[in-house]
Amino acid sequence: MKNQLTIIALAFFFWYGNVLAQEKVDLEMMYKIKSEGIGNSQIQDLSFHLTDFLGPRLSGSTNLRNARTWTADKFKEWGLSNVRIDSYGEFGRGWNVKKSYIAMKDPYYAQIIGYPKAWTDGTNGLVNSEVMLLEINSEEDFNKYKGQLKGKVVLTPANLTVNPAFEAEAKRWSEEELEERKTITIGGNVGRYTPELLAQLRAQRALDQKLTQFLLEEGVGLRITGTRGSFGTVFHTRAGSYSTEKNPTVPEMEIAAEHYGRIYRLLKNGKPVKIEAEVEVEWLDDDYRGYNVLAEIPGTDKTMKPELVMLGAHLDSWHAGTGGNDNAAGVAVMMEAIRILKAIGVQPRRTIRIALWGEEEQGLYGSRGYVQQYVADRNTKEKKGEWDKISAYYNLDNGSGKIRGIYLEGNDMVVPVFEKWFEPFHELGANTITRRNTGSTDHVAFDAVGVPGFQFIQDPIDYGKGYHTNMDVYERMQLSDMTQAAVIIAALVYNTAQRDEKLPRKPWN
Amino acid sequence: MKNQLTIIALAFFFWYGNVLAQEKVDLEMMYKIKSEGIGNSQIQDLSFHLTDFLGPRLSGSTNLRNARTWTADKFKEWGLSNVRIDSYGEFGRGWNVKKSYIAMKDPYYAQIIGYPKAWTDGTNGLVNSEVMLLEINSEEDFNKYKGQLKGKVVLTPANLTVNPAFEAEAKRWSEEELEERKTITIGGNVGRYTPELLAQLRAQRALDQKLTQFLLEEGVGLRITGTRGSFGTVFHTRAGSYSTEKNPTVPEMEIAAEHYGRIYRLLKNGKPVKIEAEVEVEWLDDDYRGYNVLAEIPGTDKTMKPELVMLGAHLDSWHAGTGGNDNAAGVAVMMEAIRILKAIGVQPRRTIRIALWGEEEQGLYGSRGYVQQYVADRNTKEKKGEWDKISAYYNLDNGSGKIRGIYLEGNDMVVPVFEKWFEPFHELGANTITRRNTGSTDHVAFDAVGVPGFQFIQDPIDYGKGYHTNMDVYERMQLSDMTQAAVIIAALVYNTAQRDEKLPRKPWN
Repeated sequence: MKNQLTIIALAFFFWYGNVLAQEKVDLEMMYKIKSEGIGNSQIQDLSFHLTDFLGPRLSGSTNLRNARTWTADKFKEWGLSNVRIDSYGEFGRGWNVKKSYIAMKDPYYAQIIGYPKAWTDGTNGLVNSEVMLLEINSEEDFNKYKGQLKGKVVLTPANLTVNPAFEAEAKRWSEEELEERKTITIGGNVGRYTPELLAQLRAQRALDQKLTQFLLEEGVGLRITGTRGSFGTVFHTRAGSYSTEKNPTVPEMEIAAEHYGRIYRLLKNGKPVKIEAEVEVEWLDDDYRGYNVLAEIPGTDKTMKPELVMLGAHLDSWHAGTGGNDNAAGVAVMMEAIRILKAIGVQPRRTIRIALWGEEEQGLYGSRGYVQQYVADRNTKEKKGEWDKISAYYNLDNGSGKIRGIYLEGNDMVVPVFEKWFEPFHELGANTITRRNTGSTDHVAFDAVGVPGFQFIQDPIDYGKGYHTNMDVYERMQLSDMTQAAVIIAALVYNTAQRDEKLPRKPWN
Repeated sequence: MKNQLTIIALAFFFWYGNVLAQEKVDLEMMYKIKSEGIGNSQIQDLSFHLTDFLGPRLSGSTNLRNARTWTADKFKEWGLSNVRIDSYGEFGRGWNVKKSYIAMKDPYYAQIIGYPKAWTDGTNGLVNSEVMLLEINSEEDFNKYKGQLKGKVVLTPANLTVNPAFEAEAKRWSEEELEERKTITIGGNVGRYTPELLAQLRAQRALDQKLTQFLLEEGVGLRITGTRGSFGTVFHTRAGSYSTEKNPTVPEMEIAAEHYGRIYRLLKNGKPVKIEAEVEVEWLDDDYRGYNVLAEIPGTDKTMKPELVMLGAHLDSWHAGTGGNDNAAGVAVMMEAIRILKAIGVQPRRTIRIALWGEEEQGLYGSRGYVQQYVADRNTKEKKGEWDKISAYYNLDNGSGKIRGIYLEGNDMVVPVFEKWFEPFHELGANTITRRNTGSTDHVAFDAVGVPGFQFIQDPIDYGKGYHTNMDVYERMQLSDMTQAAVIIAALVYNTAQRDEKLPRKPWN
């Protein structure tokens, strides 16, 4: 037995030693990255400019255009190469809010916290009308309201409950929770949607679509709906259309759950409610294209310099806050990561490219457009120029909480690599390597075509309470956490750029 | 030793038995009160009407006037006696908001959550101006701005930090915390204000007052200040004046901390900010008196019917929410308590009188006015007609959380009484009898003249997060908790009305 064990132990040692040997970590470089990132952090200034200074950056909006220019200029200022604002194809119409006001006039004056839904039309001046409560539960219900809604304010019911928060709104992952994030459950969602439930949802959606059309035909002055959130925080729900077909919409505002509740209860109790509101919007029809902002630190290795390590985050946001956690945080961290590398004079073997994506919130348009154009067609499986050149794409889009680890999208082969690469950051709280997937953001565009695309496990802080809301602003951003994240990402990007081999991939096609 | 202990034990038994004998609890009546209060609760309807229906009830406002009429009518509807809206003396000017709007125009359009400070003047139309950041730290600083502020929007710095909520916003007291509420620390506040700190505070206040006057003389268009709160919740701070001297004020709005922060940071970074705002207010000069609403279930005992048991809560609120937890909750509970007693046909020995106080938020004016007029002068110590007639006054003003016990204001003599009276409510979570004081609301007016005045220990839920804010509305009110509170108060009021003796008092004069 002893001999056998020795042989196994030795075999393991050589194999593991081999992995370790390959994943050389340049500790001096790690030290330099930490020193620059922590000692000379630009996170605060970047965060201020991306939120307060540039404002909400809705897909296609003037502010997003300004944000592209501002970030590109910043890249140039830092001496990055090949800075460009690169169109990925058509997006649609831009839309800016120029005025937004809503208040209750009767039974007494009260301000309402509410916002126009994105890409809905304006009210064409001040609307001043009684509110009609529209309760449409079947096709027949439309007849009850037909011909009565011209210029009126209508309220459509929302299923909202507001409960006290007996659990903290903000949290950090405990060691136990991080450990739990390593586990993978197979088939956990089976049976979530029963045929009955699906049929019901489809019927509801058909009714909703008919309602939208009905309100337009009736010439409703303003539609108001309640939305998730409480205590003055208003979540964004679905929106109008940025389609270039320019279909008109009913002006529509989503209002705080409590204010919705008040109007709803008053109407249900037979008490008339009068609303005054004004929404003015501006449509941008001069350029329907969507864009990403790209910049590089060029590779220096003769053979490897056409290869790429990419890092990115989406530049667009929703419109009622300033997109602090979603995703000025990710943009600031990624910008800071490449700034650190440039500042310490890194001469990478592979080219390092940062991408600030457009129109993520409408369906990962920027990253998918980039992948489609340069990497591969995820439908036809046609590979394009960069497909075998990108070693990895790193993405950040879960708020501003510090990095606690990385999601490896089921890629077993990279586990030992990242275990080694995270070692110098254990004391900074980052040591959870999970094979789990995480979805809903731009790394998915790369993963979908077999190119390693990764997101990070981040402390949630109060991300869940504030993202996609009017209160996703500068104050939500945890600046010291972001400083940590930038350092770690700079290190991973560096390691990926220097590694002898590109990162191992999952099989694709 | 044994004999001695037996004697002590027997003595205790007889003394305690005596107390118990006196505190007869009519369990059938307790059962009836619970049945009516829980089975036929009007709490939801009362809560809706006091908040949504009547609106914010700022001292002296039209809505508060309406609230007096509405509650008095409700008392009449219930068959209560001697329903009257009783003036306690002069309060001051009424003030209503008729329009309130504020938004950032430059560097981009963004709505701002903000409210006029109470009793400040309107803007006289739309203000549209760059914002000047006023940093006044000494007398000399005024010269920097002199002659430059006419019609301008000015921002004065506020010391605000917005942190993530790592603790739950809402909570109930644990048994340990309740136990802790029984302990009393003597002299805990000694040395809180050092002479140096006091001098500093005084200097700051002098500067603040001078600033207020300066802004008025300069003809500032609008002053904006940041205020406590986050995520869209805006706390009220100090206000303008309801004084009948009609001193004009600068229009002033307090805005969400995040929106304040954005403007402040932009200005500090040299980026011009433009604000548009409009505030229209209405002053009421037809009646400067303040009022309480009173109603009764008359006593039936020949000797004891001139004696009183009182219960009450303040009807006024702040102006940007609808005063849900502060204090529609207390009003609804107290109204419900007397309704329960009336509904089950109680014929009390002593008269039961409910009082809904006016103008509590401006300094307990309603209750103090009542006490001054009918009970005693707290300065001259002159006793008036009701001084020796009121057995107890019960007050509720710590939100809508259920009752966990009672604060006895250091009155040792009533401890055994309430221990007995709370027994039937232990299963409802109410069993903490503390000698502690609690301040800042209307029972203080009675306690100050030696009449037993009590408040309750209530579960805080999210009272602390929402009271005195724009988000103190119907949704904050915990209706089932209030149902419990009404039942307990009805029982205590009943017991106090039936008790052979009035409740023992602390010595006064």
